[in-house]
Amino acid sequence: MQHGATTGSRHYGNSSTIHIENFALPVTESPKPKPDALPLGFQYSGTTCGIKDSGKPDIALITSDVPAVAAGVYTQNIVRAASIDWNRQVTPTDHLKAIIINSGNANACTGDQGSRNNQQMAYQTANALNDNPGNICIMSTGIIGQQLPMKCIEKGIVQASERLGSTVADFESASEAILTTDKGTKTAFRSFEYQGETVRLAGMAKGAGMIGPNMATMLGIVTTDMTLTPPVAQEILKRVADKSFNCISVEGHTSTNDALVLLANGLSPSPVKHWQAIQLFTDALTELCIELATQIPADGEGASHLVEICVSGAACDQDADIVARAVAMSNLVKTAIAGADPNWGRITSATGLTSVQFPIKQLCVAINTVSIFESGQPVEFDAASLSKSMAENFRTCLDIKIGGGPGLATHWTSDLTTDYVKFNSEYST
Amino acid sequence: MQHGATTGSRHYGNSSTIHIENFALPVTESPKPKPDALPLGFQYSGTTCGIKDSGKPDIALITSDVPAVAAGVYTQNIVRAASIDWNRQVTPTDHLKAIIINSGNANACTGDQGSRNNQQMAYQTANALNDNPGNICIMSTGIIGQQLPMKCIEKGIVQASERLGSTVADFESASEAILTTDKGTKTAFRSFEYQGETVRLAGMAKGAGMIGPNMATMLGIVTTDMTLTPPVAQEILKRVADKSFNCISVEGHTSTNDALVLLANGLSPSPVKHWQAIQLFTDALTELCIELATQIPADGEGASHLVEICVSGAACDQDADIVARAVAMSNLVKTAIAGADPNWGRITSATGLTSVQFPIKQLCVAINTVSIFESGQPVEFDAASLSKSMAENFRTCLDIKIGGGPGLATHWTSDLTTDYVKFNSEYST
Repeated sequence: MQHGATTGSRHYGNSSTIHIENFALPVTESPKPKPDALPLGFQYSGTTCGIKDSGKPDIALITSDVPAVAAGVYTQNIVRAASIDWNRQVTPTDHLKAIIINSGNANACTGDQGSRNNQQMAYQTANALNDNPGNICIMSTGIIGQQLPMKCIEKGIVQASERLGSTVADFESASEAILTTDKGTKTAFRSFEYQGETVRLAGMAKGAGMIGPNMATMLGIVTTDMTLTPPVAQEILKRVADKSFNCISVEGHTSTNDALVLLANGLSPSPVKHWQAIQLFTDALTELCIELATQIPADGEGASHLVEICVSGAACDQDADIVARAVAMSNLVKTAIAGADPNWGRITSATGLTSVQFPIKQLCVAINTVSIFESGQPVEFDAASLSKSMAENFRTCLDIKIGGGPGLATHWTSDLTTDYVKFNSEYST
Repeated sequence: MQHGATTGSRHYGNSSTIHIENFALPVTESPKPKPDALPLGFQYSGTTCGIKDSGKPDIALITSDVPAVAAGVYTQNIVRAASIDWNRQVTPTDHLKAIIINSGNANACTGDQGSRNNQQMAYQTANALNDNPGNICIMSTGIIGQQLPMKCIEKGIVQASERLGSTVADFESASEAILTTDKGTKTAFRSFEYQGETVRLAGMAKGAGMIGPNMATMLGIVTTDMTLTPPVAQEILKRVADKSFNCISVEGHTSTNDALVLLANGLSPSPVKHWQAIQLFTDALTELCIELATQIPADGEGASHLVEICVSGAACDQDADIVARAVAMSNLVKTAIAGADPNWGRITSATGLTSVQFPIKQLCVAINTVSIFESGQPVEFDAASLSKSMAENFRTCLDIKIGGGPGLATHWTSDLTTDYVKFNSEYST
């Protein structure tokens, strides 16, 4: 059985290789970026306008010095916020100016008034930046079912526009202002060289299980000085999201407000129209988005393990994805991992739940590279020692091989602990 | 908004009406059947042969005095036991003689030796009954990945065949011997009159969340003296399973061994070939199977609530089913109910998760008949009083209306408590 190594390289699709060992986990603090880590020609700010009772920052603004290409992927949930419908009309585009983000109130389930308030945010941001409302993306996260405090928002937008800057501190200020229940900021940076010039990518995200009546909204924003066309940007972002943000789950709910937006302003001097540059960019974006995305289940409320589920041997990547998702969603698997129990029965049963057909005689399972199930039957292994390694490591890696095909997928989830249930059942609206 | 009443009648499909108030819940003890509740011409026994370390009964045998029509529905899990493959070949049929059931060992993930042992059980039962192995159904439930103790099994089959009887005590003895982690037996009875004659149905089931390395296997057996042909029996059983056993979930895992078998021996003197009799039978079987099936989440390890999810207003029953299933699988909804929290945000978000399209402006939600969300927005309600009613009642009813269509579905699940997680994470293989 060929197990994907837990600390080695892993293939995503046919082209890119992700070095899992680069990911520092558990993530309590994001890596400090170097001063030259930020892409050229973007400005960032974060400020406090009073949406949150806690008094924490709640408005972030990200602008490009020149009209930028923008692409977006958004929640598929039918119950969605006004901002999602707005952004779907605005992206993809080749002339986005800014993204305005408020935290503390998701402006979801707020009816026609909510739609008007969302539009108002675009107009206020456009006014502050002397631009067009159609060039503004909007993100909201926080409590649902309550109208936005528009006076606070208006004040916050003006403040944020006055504080824009291009330093690492400005970037971090914005990344802090988008948080809700997150224990800390979630950022990631990548760059690559092409024909002697540097292309930079910088990402920030929020999301950490759910709280209160608001859902576990996942927001992600990536800025880059790469040159892209809108259709190429959209296609790349969709593919990368399918390998990263769409492969994580805490409770399997998509939220009313989930959004991932890519801004590419083309200000790197790199000659980037060649397909090789596109490939290098796609690889860098994939790495960056996986690093951002895996910080979300790692920060799950009450999570004691990040669970990495690698399915191989499927007929195609899509089949592997379906199986990996079923295992990631299994409460039986998630409680077993919380208890450091190398329970092959729960894992194999979850593997067989879906419509994906495979010969049971080819099914193999390993946990943290220790083989526990081969060719359809359990094998002898040192359960005490494996359980100890599961208990001691924050990450648990499940390698599941379902046949001899080329299909691969990796999903990430958090385990299911009594703390998770306590947190989610003791809250009262 | 037309809420299904929580204690009134509810429609399943176009024809049958289920009286929910007939269902005594929480189920700690099954109702004691009257002496004449059992269908004519069946015999039952339960015995102890030493499969279980606990010394509890572990072999059950059910026989028909004449060759019976049999139909079966089985787990769709790819990781399945040898008994499932065997039964798929044996049913539907018009000449089944017996069902042999062992508890304590599921004979799953046991390879070729497991298949040989399963076949051996059929031969041993056929020997004991002086019949043909092809006329025997086999069910196994319990630990997986271990070979059956065939000497115990052989002894148990002989004992069980010697103890067969047709009294209520014999029926109960069999219903006890199929249990694993269940807190008590799960039985249900129905009868109807047609043209002055009585047709009787008797059902037993097991299943109660999961334990150990064995899954939450659900077994169900229904005996009836109704006259049916094999294709009609199979069609009815499939439809009824889709409204009952396929609408319950504790952790959403199908098991390696799930099986529901109907035995119809035609010994009632009722002239039952008319379509009206078939309809009366289908209604009775639906009621019986819902009563059996809902005892499973009610007995879920650590469950503090039985959650009933009624989705209406969908374009078709299938759409309603998809939405109800998504809500039943949501950990966020299940933890909210454990905490007696009338959390419309989590319910509406779970409702919007699937591929089923509906206008958000038509979405309405009620808990225990109290409306909390109407036309896409939260409404004012007495949260403290509703929370109190949720805390005090074992059953929580969610009524979710997603439009104006005729599609309906009801699902049942257990809530998600810290006890559930404790139980499922503290066990170690």
